[in-house]
Amino acid sequence: MSPSPAPSSQSQAPAADFGLIGLAVMGENLALNVESRGYSVAVFNRTTSVTDAFISGRAKGKKFTGCHSLEELVAAVKTPRKIMMMVKAGPAVDDLIEKLIPLCSPGDVIIDGGNEHYTNTERRTQYVESKGLLYIGTGVSGGEEGALKGPSMMPGGSEKGWPLVKPIFQAIAAKVGPKEDIPCCEWVGPRGAGHYVKMVHNGIEYGDMQLICEAYLMLKEAAGLTNDELYDVFDSWNRSELQSYLIEISRDIFSVKDDQGGDGYLVDKILDAAGAKGTGKWMSQLALDLGVPSTMVTEAVYARSLSSFKDARVRASKILAGPSPASSGVNIGDKKQFIEDVKQALYASKICSYAQGYVQLQAAAKEHNWPLNYGDIALLWRGGCIIRAQFLERIKEAFDAQPNLENLLLFPFFTEALKKAQDSWRKVVVTATQMGLPVIEFSNALAYYDSYRRERLPANLLQAQRDYFGAHTYQRTDKPLDKKFHSEWIQLRKTPKA
Amino acid sequence: MSPSPAPSSQSQAPAADFGLIGLAVMGENLALNVESRGYSVAVFNRTTSVTDAFISGRAKGKKFTGCHSLEELVAAVKTPRKIMMMVKAGPAVDDLIEKLIPLCSPGDVIIDGGNEHYTNTERRTQYVESKGLLYIGTGVSGGEEGALKGPSMMPGGSEKGWPLVKPIFQAIAAKVGPKEDIPCCEWVGPRGAGHYVKMVHNGIEYGDMQLICEAYLMLKEAAGLTNDELYDVFDSWNRSELQSYLIEISRDIFSVKDDQGGDGYLVDKILDAAGAKGTGKWMSQLALDLGVPSTMVTEAVYARSLSSFKDARVRASKILAGPSPASSGVNIGDKKQFIEDVKQALYASKICSYAQGYVQLQAAAKEHNWPLNYGDIALLWRGGCIIRAQFLERIKEAFDAQPNLENLLLFPFFTEALKKAQDSWRKVVVTATQMGLPVIEFSNALAYYDSYRRERLPANLLQAQRDYFGAHTYQRTDKPLDKKFHSEWIQLRKTPKA
Repeated sequence: MSPSPAPSSQSQAPAADFGLIGLAVMGENLALNVESRGYSVAVFNRTTSVTDAFISGRAKGKKFTGCHSLEELVAAVKTPRKIMMMVKAGPAVDDLIEKLIPLCSPGDVIIDGGNEHYTNTERRTQYVESKGLLYIGTGVSGGEEGALKGPSMMPGGSEKGWPLVKPIFQAIAAKVGPKEDIPCCEWVGPRGAGHYVKMVHNGIEYGDMQLICEAYLMLKEAAGLTNDELYDVFDSWNRSELQSYLIEISRDIFSVKDDQGGDGYLVDKILDAAGAKGTGKWMSQLALDLGVPSTMVTEAVYARSLSSFKDARVRASKILAGPSPASSGVNIGDKKQFIEDVKQALYASKICSYAQGYVQLQAAAKEHNWPLNYGDIALLWRGGCIIRAQFLERIKEAFDAQPNLENLLLFPFFTEALKKAQDSWRKVVVTATQMGLPVIEFSNALAYYDSYRRERLPANLLQAQRDYFGAHTYQRTDKPLDKKFHSEWIQLRKTPKA
Repeated sequence: MSPSPAPSSQSQAPAADFGLIGLAVMGENLALNVESRGYSVAVFNRTTSVTDAFISGRAKGKKFTGCHSLEELVAAVKTPRKIMMMVKAGPAVDDLIEKLIPLCSPGDVIIDGGNEHYTNTERRTQYVESKGLLYIGTGVSGGEEGALKGPSMMPGGSEKGWPLVKPIFQAIAAKVGPKEDIPCCEWVGPRGAGHYVKMVHNGIEYGDMQLICEAYLMLKEAAGLTNDELYDVFDSWNRSELQSYLIEISRDIFSVKDDQGGDGYLVDKILDAAGAKGTGKWMSQLALDLGVPSTMVTEAVYARSLSSFKDARVRASKILAGPSPASSGVNIGDKKQFIEDVKQALYASKICSYAQGYVQLQAAAKEHNWPLNYGDIALLWRGGCIIRAQFLERIKEAFDAQPNLENLLLFPFFTEALKKAQDSWRKVVVTATQMGLPVIEFSNALAYYDSYRRERLPANLLQAQRDYFGAHTYQRTDKPLDKKFHSEWIQLRKTPKA
């Protein structure tokens, strides 16, 4: 970590097209991806031996310059420089920015490719611009493999920086379309907009994963499917409107045998206690601040948290009463139809989840004055990233047709899909409820749908309660909405019986 | 607001036992309450005319001193002073503290009785103590009437301040117990503990209110009960294990006729768009940070937010398909039994909601090193506050019997109640699902219960997915839990068909 005496870079004129800091797996793979598109890349890692190992290993024979200090790195990159940070989000990024600013030249672009909270990117864009440099915060999705072969990229920040990085970003990004020539990378918007969109991507990913788990629960516990049968079901789903990366890898997972020498399938040996990294939590907390009902991501986060209380659940399972699929006496009926019902429940719930994500994006865009293009965002997610799916084409079509669409549920394609799905959807929730199987996302999505389509909800009673005990006032259905009413409930009420 | 030339206070020796700043309705009522217990009170409001109006109005002939400046107020109170702020939470409290510190003497107690975010109270306790004074942040619940006649009080902060304020606080607080002599006011814990407990109180209140709304929805829409019938049902519930202030005022509400000259009942004229003040949101955001599943408060917050999209719902109601109670073809069967089923669903869901609130309190206490007494907290809520209910006696008994109880669901009384309730509970969720009525809290509570009692959840698939796309690793059920595994899924999977 102290400056090394012998830099491994050649002392020639600055040559590199791109600089990259942080050679953990995502950084390394992104660097290799950039180089593979014909660009020369200077790289730096705080731990010098990591840089050296990369240069003498995967980078060998390629257009890389290994640098042992930030000074060397900056010196090695052509101006206007594009220097991308792939380091742990948070204070480490601020430290790095402080060190880079005095080394860089006016008009250079500092890029953050980490999973950063968008408020930090909002702040840093303004700060870095105040120092005469440009700043881009970009979402990068696709995991290790995506980083190497073509991620989905969601850049936001200094708009003047976009033309400078666009050729490289669009070269390395995943491509979609009939000719595989539409890059899953387009300018998102000012300041933190790119990282916000990435956060919503991750939140939707939380929902998708929980929904798949609930489909799995129903097929395994209610219908008794084996892993081989689950493989076939997910394989067929992956050839339907559910086609997506997450369905595909779930299918694959059902085929994998224990790799630790045990009998049976690996998925059955894995502990049912889920981890989380924080973006789903951020999205939930921000939805609560915005006052928009992003119930699906939040319930997915809570479901992971509940799963992690494994010991408590094991104890509780011996104490708390309730039916099991076998003891409930409920019959699923025709198995093929039941599988179709579960598929429809998954599909309908997924539509609700994306609808909520877009409502949150719209609310955030309004709050921050980001001119977002919602159709383009769907296209960014069409390839490369974890939630990639054919389904996103439909969302692109919806926003292309109605740029101000207030909720995806109201676009005819989705309205129709929900109409078609709902008998199955309700049946699955009913069966799960009777069998004692928790399908929190399926039922939550349905409650969202049924709330959203109700002209009248019971919140009138709630408003009456608030006015009764706290004089919070209420509006009336038959009076102008800018008029607030308060009633003297205690005087008006019927005298209670003793 | 400029200092008044003629102070209304007499220039005698300091005489007042208590000082109070902020004469909005809660402050005024609290001041009157303190005075009514035999204490003299000096009061100050930023707008002088408000002070004068109070002194010449409700305070007339009572032991009050009206002050026209903070200097006057501080001078009017005996040392060690107890000066309570009843002002808008946030920066206004910080401003006031800055102004009070130089005026006060060592050992004086500054008290914040507002609905403050506990992190501010954590910070302010340490700050005020660093200046040689004491600080108390106290939750005060009960609305206007409670403030006047006996609120529930949840004080935390500088422990040395407690003996100084205890006689006054316990004198003004609500009383419970067979002899009505147990005050709903006891020391909660250091720094922000009091405001945290108040926040959890409010979050539970959100849940209770949403649960009552869902019971109302089912009784009105599925069973077709009139307001008169609803009155009778809630009156009978208020004589059962559901006895509580919120059930009582709901009953009252169903008896109130339109007070604007229209026909029929007032509750039917109230707009079904609920407001919120923020404590439910705070509790949700903190639950997400703590990693505990407080699903019920969060869904209650989201339900309010969904209700507030009234225009969107009216539009959607004409577009989105789905059953109504009438069109669903579902029959509720015996009406009396159905009402009992709804009651059981409400009761069981309520138990889950309180269980979640206590789990969050325990997690927060652990994080902040607060030595909370959970039984005492239940007793604080037993009277005076919005969630007051007989039910809280059972919670007190549970924690008195098992101070380290990990979840209320596991205490025999509640385990038994849930066992008894659950057929009804499931039936209500099933009926609502089939009829297209959203009962998000009933179904959420049930999913929580069914998740909590499951030894095995489907999160094993989720962990496999995370390891597949992101090398996040997983644990195994058959290996020590400190061992993390990663598999090369792509190499291990069955080669997919084309």
